[in-house]
Amino acid sequence: MRKLLFNLVAKFFCLNGIKNIVLIGAGNVATQLGIALQKSGKNIIQVFSQTEISAQHLAKILNTSFTTDLHLVNKIADLYIISVSDDGIEGIAGKIGSGLNFVVHTSGSKSMDNLGKASKNLGVFYPLQTISKDREIDFKEIPICIEANSMENLQKLRILAENLSNKVVEINSDQRKILHLAAVFASNFPNYLYSVAEQILKEKKLDFELLLPLILETANKVQSIYPLEAQTGPAFRGDDKIIRDHLKMLENFPDWQNIYGILSKGIRGK
Amino acid sequence: MRKLLFNLVAKFFCLNGIKNIVLIGAGNVATQLGIALQKSGKNIIQVFSQTEISAQHLAKILNTSFTTDLHLVNKIADLYIISVSDDGIEGIAGKIGSGLNFVVHTSGSKSMDNLGKASKNLGVFYPLQTISKDREIDFKEIPICIEANSMENLQKLRILAENLSNKVVEINSDQRKILHLAAVFASNFPNYLYSVAEQILKEKKLDFELLLPLILETANKVQSIYPLEAQTGPAFRGDDKIIRDHLKMLENFPDWQNIYGILSKGIRGK
Repeated sequence: MRKLLFNLVAKFFCLNGIKNIVLIGAGNVATQLGIALQKSGKNIIQVFSQTEISAQHLAKILNTSFTTDLHLVNKIADLYIISVSDDGIEGIAGKIGSGLNFVVHTSGSKSMDNLGKASKNLGVFYPLQTISKDREIDFKEIPICIEANSMENLQKLRILAENLSNKVVEINSDQRKILHLAAVFASNFPNYLYSVAEQILKEKKLDFELLLPLILETANKVQSIYPLEAQTGPAFRGDDKIIRDHLKMLENFPDWQNIYGILSKGIRGK
Repeated sequence: MRKLLFNLVAKFFCLNGIKNIVLIGAGNVATQLGIALQKSGKNIIQVFSQTEISAQHLAKILNTSFTTDLHLVNKIADLYIISVSDDGIEGIAGKIGSGLNFVVHTSGSKSMDNLGKASKNLGVFYPLQTISKDREIDFKEIPICIEANSMENLQKLRILAENLSNKVVEINSDQRKILHLAAVFASNFPNYLYSVAEQILKEKKLDFELLLPLILETANKVQSIYPLEAQTGPAFRGDDKIIRDHLKMLENFPDWQNIYGILSKGIRGK
């Protein structure tokens, strides 16, 4: 009850807390986040990127200004979203100046501490999704993991995030690192295995399209049952004959053979 | 044009070619195929399984009879669908008798030849999907890969398959083996990686639900772009620092660490 009241009061006072936003970065996440924030009624007042063509491209999409010079970044925005490669965050945060209103990054694997002294008000705004520049995504169903260095800042980020998504969760830096690691297993690695499957078929002039319903159903299944219950296939059935046949079929592709062996062993080991 | 005419004529003569079907097996595929075939207007006149409880269960679902004795299998059905474990197919086909009207199996990895002399009319009816017993599936979008030992039999299977699915493809035994191998990479292995992700989160009391939109979008992406173009993540960006951090986080789980290393190496190698 107290939390609800606090939220209501906080919402009242912060409703227009974040209006003007500067995007630091012009990659996949900055692009999609910029589009979504603009649609939700925020002003993206400037885009910064070290790469002029990227800065210009995103500024055009958002119909706003851009700069490639950190010193020329607008200093009076309500929020600065640093959405650059993980290794770049600390450097940017160190150079962007101090005394900014509010600075967040969007990384799954970097601590909030990496933002240093760019502002007294720091946070993280991490959308848990695989984001490509050219594929517009609906943030509604995407978990946005937020963290901030004060209750007030957290509340501001919560309101901003809830404007985009129905699934806003508070996650600290340690938890977010775990989540990011798990996301690599749940997304980057499966996508790589899709590409191996595609290449196996291509070798024999078979069409990757044949696998698309299977790929989709595999992902759909675990929306309602746990992956352990959904497991099928030769390794799960303990069908050693098929496993040996498959390993033999892969003998000209030792890397894939190795992957097949290790993942099958993992499945058998359950 | 000739092919179209042939199909039309063949359809006319074969329309009622396959009506009465015996299911040999009562596992995931037999169950879902039985349900779908019955819905499409076919009669499942009998279920055979060596395991009485399975035979009885599926017969109840399909409101039909069952037997656990191969000698008591009805001999005058139009089609016998052998849907048992890959290792069991040859044994069943050898014992079911000879002179049956038409016998097919549903395996991705076994040749049509494995059906031996059970009938003069042989074929394969392989639905390319991950099928669980309790999850009813819509066959409409599932590729059904067919093969038969004559044009006439192929046509009969095509008509049967087209009753269920919009994606019926003729695939020979060698191609089907490749397809099955690729399907292991595209489905069984990704599902296993989902389960690793789930366990990583569970260790830290984080909720697997957070990853569900990511899993779905990863599978959705490759419905329209190739997996190589869709690849994201630390290994793809060449972010060695994050990769080292992740490997360190997995140091108590050497098997997962090994999987992480090998798949990241694969992604880097592109």
